[in-house]
Amino acid sequence: MNKIKVGVIGATGYAGAELVRLLVNHPEVEIKAVASVSYDGQELADIYPNLKEIVPMTLTAPEDIIPECDIVFASVPHGVSEELAVKCVENNTVLIDLGADFRLHDEADYKKWYGKEYKHPELHEKAVYSIPELHRDMVGKAMVIGNPGCYPTSISLGLMPAIRAGIIDTSHIIIDSKSGVTGAGRGLTQGTHFPDTNEAFAAYKAGCHRHTPEIEQTLTELAGSEVRVTFVPHLLPVNRGIESSIYVELNEKGKKLGAAQIHELYTSAYKDEKFIRVEKPGCYANLKNVRMSNYCDISLHLDEHCSTLIISSVIDNMVKGAAGQAIQNMNIRFGLPESTGLEYVPPAF
Amino acid sequence: MNKIKVGVIGATGYAGAELVRLLVNHPEVEIKAVASVSYDGQELADIYPNLKEIVPMTLTAPEDIIPECDIVFASVPHGVSEELAVKCVENNTVLIDLGADFRLHDEADYKKWYGKEYKHPELHEKAVYSIPELHRDMVGKAMVIGNPGCYPTSISLGLMPAIRAGIIDTSHIIIDSKSGVTGAGRGLTQGTHFPDTNEAFAAYKAGCHRHTPEIEQTLTELAGSEVRVTFVPHLLPVNRGIESSIYVELNEKGKKLGAAQIHELYTSAYKDEKFIRVEKPGCYANLKNVRMSNYCDISLHLDEHCSTLIISSVIDNMVKGAAGQAIQNMNIRFGLPESTGLEYVPPAF
Amino acid sequence: MNKIKVGVIGATGYAGAELVRLLVNHPEVEIKAVASVSYDGQELADIYPNLKEIVPMTLTAPEDIIPECDIVFASVPHGVSEELAVKCVENNTVLIDLGADFRLHDEADYKKWYGKEYKHPELHEKAVYSIPELHRDMVGKAMVIGNPGCYPTSISLGLMPAIRAGIIDTSHIIIDSKSGVTGAGRGLTQGTHFPDTNEAFAAYKAGCHRHTPEIEQTLTELAGSEVRVTFVPHLLPVNRGIESSIYVELNEKGKKLGAAQIHELYTSAYKDEKFIRVEKPGCYANLKNVRMSNYCDISLHLDEHCSTLIISSVIDNMVKGAAGQAIQNMNIRFGLPESTGLEYVPPAF
Amino acid sequence: MNKIKVGVIGATGYAGAELVRLLVNHPEVEIKAVASVSYDGQELADIYPNLKEIVPMTLTAPEDIIPECDIVFASVPHGVSEELAVKCVENNTVLIDLGADFRLHDEADYKKWYGKEYKHPELHEKAVYSIPELHRDMVGKAMVIGNPGCYPTSISLGLMPAIRAGIIDTSHIIIDSKSGVTGAGRGLTQGTHFPDTNEAFAAYKAGCHRHTPEIEQTLTELAGSEVRVTFVPHLLPVNRGIESSIYVELNEKGKKLGAAQIHELYTSAYKDEKFIRVEKPGCYANLKNVRMSNYCDISLHLDEHCSTLIISSVIDNMVKGAAGQAIQNMNIRFGLPESTGLEYVPPAF
Repeated sequence: MNKIKVGVIGATGYAGAELVRLLVNHPEVEIKAVASVSYDGQELADIYPNLKEIVPMTLTAPEDIIPECDIVFASVPHGVSEELAVKCVENNTVLIDLGADFRLHDEADYKKWYGKEYKHPELHEKAVYSIPELHRDMVGKAMVIGNPGCYPTSISLGLMPAIRAGIIDTSHIIIDSKSGVTGAGRGLTQGTHFPDTNEAFAAYKAGCHRHTPEIEQTLTELAGSEVRVTFVPHLLPVNRGIESSIYVELNEKGKKLGAAQIHELYTSAYKDEKFIRVEKPGCYANLKNVRMSNYCDISLHLDEHCSTLIISSVIDNMVKGAAGQAIQNMNIRFGLPESTGLEYVPPAF
Repeated sequence: MNKIKVGVIGATGYAGAELVRLLVNHPEVEIKAVASVSYDGQELADIYPNLKEIVPMTLTAPEDIIPECDIVFASVPHGVSEELAVKCVENNTVLIDLGADFRLHDEADYKKWYGKEYKHPELHEKAVYSIPELHRDMVGKAMVIGNPGCYPTSISLGLMPAIRAGIIDTSHIIIDSKSGVTGAGRGLTQGTHFPDTNEAFAAYKAGCHRHTPEIEQTLTELAGSEVRVTFVPHLLPVNRGIESSIYVELNEKGKKLGAAQIHELYTSAYKDEKFIRVEKPGCYANLKNVRMSNYCDISLHLDEHCSTLIISSVIDNMVKGAAGQAIQNMNIRFGLPESTGLEYVPPAF
Repeated sequence: MNKIKVGVIGATGYAGAELVRLLVNHPEVEIKAVASVSYDGQELADIYPNLKEIVPMTLTAPEDIIPECDIVFASVPHGVSEELAVKCVENNTVLIDLGADFRLHDEADYKKWYGKEYKHPELHEKAVYSIPELHRDMVGKAMVIGNPGCYPTSISLGLMPAIRAGIIDTSHIIIDSKSGVTGAGRGLTQGTHFPDTNEAFAAYKAGCHRHTPEIEQTLTELAGSEVRVTFVPHLLPVNRGIESSIYVELNEKGKKLGAAQIHELYTSAYKDEKFIRVEKPGCYANLKNVRMSNYCDISLHLDEHCSTLIISSVIDNMVKGAAGQAIQNMNIRFGLPESTGLEYVPPAF
Repeated sequence: MNKIKVGVIGATGYAGAELVRLLVNHPEVEIKAVASVSYDGQELADIYPNLKEIVPMTLTAPEDIIPECDIVFASVPHGVSEELAVKCVENNTVLIDLGADFRLHDEADYKKWYGKEYKHPELHEKAVYSIPELHRDMVGKAMVIGNPGCYPTSISLGLMPAIRAGIIDTSHIIIDSKSGVTGAGRGLTQGTHFPDTNEAFAAYKAGCHRHTPEIEQTLTELAGSEVRVTFVPHLLPVNRGIESSIYVELNEKGKKLGAAQIHELYTSAYKDEKFIRVEKPGCYANLKNVRMSNYCDISLHLDEHCSTLIISSVIDNMVKGAAGQAIQNMNIRFGLPESTGLEYVPPAF
């Protein structure tokens, strides 16, 4: 089989740079082009010196690369992807969008949280949103795939077995997430200036983060009834990784189960999932164990005196939460084994 | 007035070292002696070179220092303080215990969580537990003062106004806390070895941390009815600071209030408290703003679509969460202005 | 005595914010005004929330504050201080300039390294440059004091005893310095964006940093003959602190001395200096021991097989390297004990 | 070709864990066994949870694994490797020793710096020390290969072109190195306890680090005459990476060259070396660009006013400075392309 011709639009953003890092070692793809509006004409390795002599490519204009690619990954501001999708469909090029344009099924949600309307509603109807472990069967031959947000990925994977088993109260779920600073992107802000971020810690956008509707959409779909979440993200002074501590009350069915049975329910649900690792009882999911990799580690803790299950779910926000999951979706879309190019072993330190 | 003669037992632990740092600049005390079982006979500045030429003192045996001091601070393993208390009372020396021996009113709780019984129950009856902002009127002429734990301090101060105002459901409260690594002490463990801690993040002791009964004791006292908490601490890769995100559901009374009214309720409750700062609406409590100082910053966030109030409370775990609060208690006990020696301005970075 | 009326111009920069932090606890001053071109009219505590309720001051325009102050500290871009100095002299207000305008005695150096000429040469003739331990006798009643750069302070203090004793070859000295990120200031740059700085380390401006002429000026003055240095700074992923490793070859006189004699030479030279601490033989100066404080710790290491003396000198770049030293200079200028307001004990962690 | 059967002795140390991480993705090897004296019988993934489900292997006793392996990597305390080497030779198993036992050619050096004698001198005569870029031709069919130390690797690669070209004074070279904390290993010490290491920086073993004779051995071999170095390592608060700033005076021949010619000399010397990247003029080698990878980045800076060349050389101490270089040596020894299994792209963050 010929190698898949791949393009990366928004290659100078953090998710774009991470895509390039991972794609270099993917055995079935050829990186055909890297594009950037801001750095058009410059060498990618001048912006990311880690890539020097490894990816000797010049950045081009986004529109130029679509015709020559079988698939394009886009990591661009919301609103921009929709226009790229139109061009991709015209060129029979698959688009995997790492932004928010193709994540929400309900345009009303998009309008409420992003302040814009869909210009091409028909595209959204055909687009697929895919956390592979939950939606891989829906990918099929979709030309536009909405790649999930980082927080929703860690949260949805952490909750799926409990919701499917019907052991928790899904009317209200409390989620306390913490993300490494790459989640805020490469753009400069006072809040991500080193002396302001280092030795610091705070919540932000408590109860009003844009990932909220995406989280509720997936959980509602899993539960079959409306799920509401109180979602509070925090900025963590590390480069990579998300930890989500999820608090759910056991319902009558759940209260009859002990910790061992709940654990068994999770290991069973994920027994065929290469990238999901359920911690042994008594162990805690730690984001250091999944850094640089596509794994999601999940640990379970039962607070019996409050009938509350605590689920800790960790991912690398740039890999399973962005570039890695996008490649996993590409593999599904092109009929490759799902873990192709994603075999990287997380380092211990 | 003569200066108060002060001794520090356990001066080589982190809380002890922090006590020394703060006491050096306290205008009304004289550090009479520093003691350590492990380092008896050594120079304190050889263990803490930050103190060289500033505190040229030799560590002595703990029992030696009680007779010559008006007050002794003890930061020692649980079980040890009780014996120190006996000697202090005999010598008419006040003891402020930074450990857990005098925090729990109910011996059954102590036995359950610490696995020991009280050997001198009469001491515990006379001892006082004091978060100054909540209990200062109870200190009086107590000879033994139990200084609160770091997590319970941040949590109790964060919840007090909401509980007292009766606007939240107190039957079950969810608390997600994150602590800097000094909270784990000076002792070496794999989990606090730099390469294992840096660029890492995980929960620990979820639902089973020893501070749980202390938190429930104070909140129950405030509420006047039994409060249960699900308390999950996390280890944060910073030296200092605790952030507690507290999730409470508004009750019928609370749902009638808007964000501005709840905010007013907090600023009003703390208007005379020097060390409590309520953030403006829209701002987030950040542990960087209280580092090295005795302040507790609190921010309030309303998730209206779930009728949930999110309270973020931050302190420096070594100051307001340990040494600073202990000195604040000493000031109360000896009739000094509460902020004496605690005027340090938190640095911006 | 009435309190000294102090103003801070450039109060929203890092050095300015540090000045405010230290001045709040200075017993002999009153902060009369804080000024900022960029934030004129805003609350200082909105920009530095660590100061909220502690410094409830509104930022004003720089020119407004000079007449009402006995002394003004300026931390502004080079070229701006000169104009401020004119106004200060007119108003009989002392100016301590934390920038580079009054550091270089030779206008040719200023022109070469900063690309500008002196507009008021007469001001520079009367201005004094002062590292207090080296130049305190020259301060007198100077109206304009050039406060030293951070790197030159750590280096000059590290080398003074060896140069004065005439035991080293001063024709060429190699200096490898490392600075925390606050040294780069509050302005946003890609190189100080958290994910680019954290877990990173590199040299910058090797052999071409603007502090080079200032270093050579002081060392030449100490040696009485021209000293040349190869000076290479590095960016260290910590908030505060500078470590300078200085490599000097012993001359014939120096080779006759053993490590103990060189050590004695240093302790003797600094025996009356409160803020200089010479480490015991075998100990290493560590920037963590001077953080937040005005101390400079120095350790000495002899590489006998190369007849090379290694001097490690550490300071807090924002205190002894900027705001603290400026206050030390103010104390000298106004006849106060030099350590007034600078008694802060460095924390152990 | 059958896969090479590989064993790792000392698999629970940091270098051992890193070997396992890299070997998992090496296409030509099979990890046959992992051994540890301290953890014999335990699961490797219980100690390194990053490896769970990826390396489901039980740790065994070191002596057991030699017979079944074609090659064994040993990362064990000095003195132990010599005995392992005897057994390997008996079993016709290649040994790559990541410790110090086979680095020094002169037993007198070993005795002076490590306090032990060689028990099997004949083994040392046949053993090969190999930094591949300098010594690959000497590997041949050696049964025992001494893998270089981390500091000597960064330094030797940084100096080779200048020494070979004869443009510098080699009688005395000053080297200021900074290493991430993994360099100190997994063992617990106060100096690597998180709160003591974080926000800290200091030199250690100035002029007396055990890597000194190894550095001088390689440089002397390159120069053809005795080279002496003043070598001062520092502990850097990052997990991984070494930066060495090397200061050399240009000799008469060197002084005739400009910066461009010296740069050309380096790019030419390394033009066929995949793992050595010479920075463009004006760019600085940054350890973040080589993390997790086998690259060594080198930048050159000329201080013309002192005729001094500054060479900054960075590696990942655990990869090019340990495990990666060991695999590179294995590839040479077994006739594989040198970069096999080492193609990992360093991440940008």
